[in-house]
Parts: sequence; C-alpha cells; structure tokens
Amino acid sequence: MSADRIFNFSAGPSVLPLPVLEQAAAEMTNYRGTGMSVMEMSHRSKAYQGIFDETKADLKRLLKIPDTHEILFMQGGATLQFSAVPLNLIGRTGKADYAITGNFSESAMKEAMKYGEIRTACSSADRNHTYIPPQDKIHVGGDASYFHYCSNNTIYGTEWRYVPETGGAPIVCDMSSDILSKPVDVSKYGVIYAGVQKNMAPAGMAAVIIDKALAGSEHAMTPKLMSYKEMIDSDSMYNTPPCYTIYMLGLVLKWLDEQGGVESMERIKSGKAKLLYDVLDASKMFIGCAEKAARSDMNVTFRTANAELDEKFVKEATKAGFDNLKGHRLVGGMRASIYNAMPIEGVAKLAEFIRDFEKRN
Amino acid sequence: MSADRIFNFSAGPSVLPLPVLEQAAAEMTNYRGTGMSVMEMSHRSKAYQGIFDETKADLKRLLKIPDTHEILFMQGGATLQFSAVPLNLIGRTGKADYAITGNFSESAMKEAMKYGEIRTACSSADRNHTYIPPQDKIHVGGDASYFHYCSNNTIYGTEWRYVPETGGAPIVCDMSSDILSKPVDVSKYGVIYAGVQKNMAPAGMAAVIIDKALAGSEHAMTPKLMSYKEMIDSDSMYNTPPCYTIYMLGLVLKWLDEQGGVESMERIKSGKAKLLYDVLDASKMFIGCAEKAARSDMNVTFRTANAELDEKFVKEATKAGFDNLKGHRLVGGMRASIYNAMPIEGVAKLAEFIRDFEKRN
Repeated sequence: MSADRIFNFSAGPSVLPLPVLEQAAAEMTNYRGTGMSVMEMSHRSKAYQGIFDETKADLKRLLKIPDTHEILFMQGGATLQFSAVPLNLIGRTGKADYAITGNFSESAMKEAMKYGEIRTACSSADRNHTYIPPQDKIHVGGDASYFHYCSNNTIYGTEWRYVPETGGAPIVCDMSSDILSKPVDVSKYGVIYAGVQKNMAPAGMAAVIIDKALAGSEHAMTPKLMSYKEMIDSDSMYNTPPCYTIYMLGLVLKWLDEQGGVESMERIKSGKAKLLYDVLDASKMFIGCAEKAARSDMNVTFRTANAELDEKFVKEATKAGFDNLKGHRLVGGMRASIYNAMPIEGVAKLAEFIRDFEKRN
Repeated sequence: MSADRIFNFSAGPSVLPLPVLEQAAAEMTNYRGTGMSVMEMSHRSKAYQGIFDETKADLKRLLKIPDTHEILFMQGGATLQFSAVPLNLIGRTGKADYAITGNFSESAMKEAMKYGEIRTACSSADRNHTYIPPQDKIHVGGDASYFHYCSNNTIYGTEWRYVPETGGAPIVCDMSSDILSKPVDVSKYGVIYAGVQKNMAPAGMAAVIIDKALAGSEHAMTPKLMSYKEMIDSDSMYNTPPCYTIYMLGLVLKWLDEQGGVESMERIKSGKAKLLYDVLDASKMFIGCAEKAARSDMNVTFRTANAELDEKFVKEATKAGFDNLKGHRLVGGMRASIYNAMPIEGVAKLAEFIRDFEKRN
C-alpha cells in the first residue's frame, strides 16, 4: 500500500489494484512503443485489436466461459441491461419472472415492465431484504421467457449462495457486485451481466456473457446498439467501444490471474469477509444487518443500536483513513465494500478499528 | 511534442493533448490528495461531484450554452443517440426529416425509421457526398418533429458552413467531429450531440446539449437511461456515469481554455487545414476528395490518381511517423484528421511530407 493512499471501501466505483493504476499511468502517453496512448488509438487499429482480443480471451479463460457463450462489452452499465434483457429476450412468450432481493433487482423489474408481463418469482421485501429466499419459495412459470435475479445485493449486503432451479427457463443474472470473486458455472446461465465499476474496471461499461442461442429475437424497437445479435455479429464493435475501459479491464484481469484467478479470489474474499463478520459476531455494540446465511462476502453491512453512534463511527473511521463506510440510506448504519482489489491489510485494519472503537465507546 | 510520440491522424478515437495525458498520468494513483484515483471515486462523493460540476460549467462557458439548454453526459456514443433522438423527440408528429450528407447521417436515419416516418430532407449521395446541399435544396415539412443533420462528415471530409433554416422545426445536430472547433450559436439548436472520442475525450460517451423544452414526451418503450427527461432530472447520474471519461473531458476543456477557447480554436484549425489544402491545390499529383466549398477543417480527404500510389504514400508516411492516414474504404485515398489536439507542427510536417513525396515520385 502506497503511503499516500487511503483504504477506500466504496460500493462502486471502487478501489482498483494499485499495480494496475501504476501500469496505466506509466503507459499513458506511449503504450508499449506505439507512440500514443491507448485512449488515442483507433479501435480498428492492430494495436488496439490486440488489447481487445487479449482482454476477451483472459475473461473467457478466467471464468471458464464455454464456446456456447459470447462475451460482449456494452455501454450503459448494468442499468441499460435492465432494458436490454427484456428487449432482447422477452419476445418468446412476452412474460418473465424476477426475484426481488434488493433495490437493483426491483429497478430491473420495473424497467422490464415496459416490455412485457413481469411477475415476482420471489421477494425478500417482507424482512427488508435481509435474507435470500430458498429454492422452494421461487416460482418460475413454465411460460417465462427467462428468470432474472441479482446475485449480490450491494445495498443490503446479501449474496445468493446457490444458483436457482428454474425448470428450464433461461437464467439471467446481474452479477455486477460479485463477478470474478469466485468460480461460476457459466453454462447454467442464459445471460450474465455486470456493470464493471465494482470488481472489473472503471465505470462506464457492462460485461455481458450470453448464450448465443438466445440472441436474434429482439423487439423491433430495440436500439441497434442494444441488440445482442448486433453486438455478437460485430464483436462489440458496432460503434466505437469504451476502448480505455476495456484496456483497464484487461490490466485488472492480468492482475487477477497473477493472484491465482477466481479460485484463489474465492479463498481470499471469504477470508477477508470472515475477518469482519467474526468481529461483528463477537461484538456487543455492532451487529450485521443481513441474516447470517445470506451474508455477502463483497459488501459487509453493519450497525450499532443507535444512529448517532453510527455517525460517530463513520466520522472517526474516515479520519483514520477508512473511507466511504457510510451505509446506503435504505439500510443505514455502515457498509464496507471489500471487492477483489481491497487488500487484506485494509480489511484487517478495519476489523481492528471496529474492535478498538467498541472499547473506546 | 515528446520525442517518442508520433503524429496520430486517426479519425477517432484520436490524438489528445499531451499535457492532458501527462496530468492524467500524474494524478492516476492519488487525485489531488484524496488518496485515490478518479477511477476509484464514488460518483456520489464530494470530490467527484466537484470534477463533474466543473466540467459541465466549463463546457457551458466555452460553448456559451444558454440557460434554456442542459448538458447531459450519456453512454453509448453518438450511435445510441441515433436511437435516443427519435425515441425522445418524434412523438409530437411521428415524422422527422433527415439531411443525408454521409455515412453517419444515413445510419442515423435508418435507425430512426424504427420509430416513425422518416423523410430525406436533402442528400449529397448523387455526387458521393463530396458536397453539402445548399439551403434551397433542403425540404423540411411543416409536420416534422425535428430536422436532423451531421455537421461534419468524417469519412467524406465535408463540413456544413451554415446552420440550415427549418421553418420552425427543432434542429438536431450530430457534431461528433467538429464540436469545440469553433463557436456555435447553441440557441439555434434543439439538440446537439457528439460522441466524445474525436474532439473531447476518450471513447465511451456522448455529450448532449438539449433545449429542456423538448424533453418529456419520449416513447413509452424508451429505456430509462435514454430518456432525456430522466437524464435532466438526475443531472446525468441516474446510474453511475462514465466518471473517468468526464474527468478527461474536464482536463481537455481546461487545456482548450488555455489555448484561448473555441474562438481561438477556430483560427487555429482554419490555419491548420489551409496548410494542407494549399499543398493539395498546388499539387499535380494530389487532389482533395471534397468539393472546395464543402471542405472540412477537421478531416482532410485527398488522393492521387491511382490506388497503388496512395498505398505507397500511406506506407511511407507511416514509416515517417505520420500514423492513420489511410482513407475510409468508402472514399479510398488518404484522410488526415486534424482535430483540436493535433499540434500545428504535425500538420506542417505532413504538408512538407506531401510536397516531398510528390517531388520524389
């Protein structure tokens, strides 16, 4: 950790690996002898195509993406996918089922309602999204064009620990906040999408992994740039892609690979989360906001019994170099987002800070 | 010019000011004492909001944008605006008129046909888009929801030298390749949009300047992220914006301001273009592809009488440090894109190289 850097627990955009930032800075005015920045390269140039291809290949290898699936880099983040998913996929039956386990899955559902009949497959709203519904509470209709869920709920700090059974309906998953933190059986999914600004790259893009068999039946009013078919056919270059964001993703993937890939990340992130949850479980002042079985390894939500003490905690933590710990207004309290790039040192020091704070107060 | 940098004449993504790249590199791991990169900042943080607000204020000041108009930063580049414009604006009458002066205006028109009755207001296709139709050839219906044109045709090297009269129909203009190269009377426009990857910033965003009175009547199927009304109401932050691209735009605008703003840019770009056009006009080997009255100051298209000699030129120019001079396949020959960030030194040296090449061949 560079002496002048702080520990940034932001939920997204969020911390990036320091070696990645250093490399980006070093290559900024002249990328590997090309005489120009990656930002200045034609997306049709050989140099840029190389960066693009390597990034895709690394993502494919790291997530073991089968040949049935294609990787797309699309602008608009996860939010534009809230629209793209129904526009592209709902045509088969006009119906789809959504699991509601937090704010973003609800936004996805509301947006989809513009395009078809959307039904609630299950919901954790009855206990303020502190848990993940079990399989037997999920209802997916035989006529559903797809089933949609959000695998990690950034705001509430919950994470799905299983892949739902849908009785054949393609599974669409918003993995924005836990992609690349663990191995995933991609073959189980029709579409995986992720806003890149948490575990992948700077904000401004979504990575989409799609079963190619699902593309090609989009609604006639689908903007061309949002058509999965069009994006597959043009290899994500129907127009100028967010070239530099893809380059940064490439650097992050190289770094991830050096850490041992997603298998290694799974061990590391479980260890990091345990450091915080153990402190919370031993504490008489702090409690975790999510039910134990549903706790997220990416976003640890916690609070004390009173809002003033929470505020004091956030203020003192900020002063001590732990930034962005204030919880989302829908939950209150605190939230520590500990994505892949958050060093274990930062989490260990935060755990210590929590213990010390309790002793002092 | 740094010794290891080349002259990059790419049509976009394209050259950025070297001081801007150097500053971005210097601030990469720790932005002005915040302890983090701009890439790592929450878009809701005070530090990032400051960057965002200043960038908007600088753009407003530099282009003298009146209070009737709002600046939006939207993902998807100009291409997604091809869809957003009709989705948001065509509702009033269901009809719109498009001026066809090149490849991108044609793409915009084709996309708009998904959403209403689109008519050709004028076209330069009869002479392969080598000219810009005069006012008396433009037909805008009294029932047009808007009139659309592209002010600079990157591929063909032509540029509109006047703002068309439309008899009251709001003017929508794709200014992707000449925005910020000269003063513009923004009050004449309903919507100005520009993919940022030519004269503004790295690829991955469009700047949209919209008369607020036009927002709010979008089609019911408009993706929420593409609604001008939604973007105005959320100040372009309905979801996480492409934060770093906006930061880079901010740096470019500061640089532009130091150069004397768009008034100064107009003098400089006219001078740069003249350097090349004078050489072409005096040449017996090279000719400009566009008709003189319509020549673009941003993209200079030229060729010799035979394709092999063109190829030889491009090859030798590349070797001599002038990159990306190959013309677009729709026109052939050569194209030198000389946006704001291309130093006059690069243009002067290219002019010299063209003269020398003619002498040698």
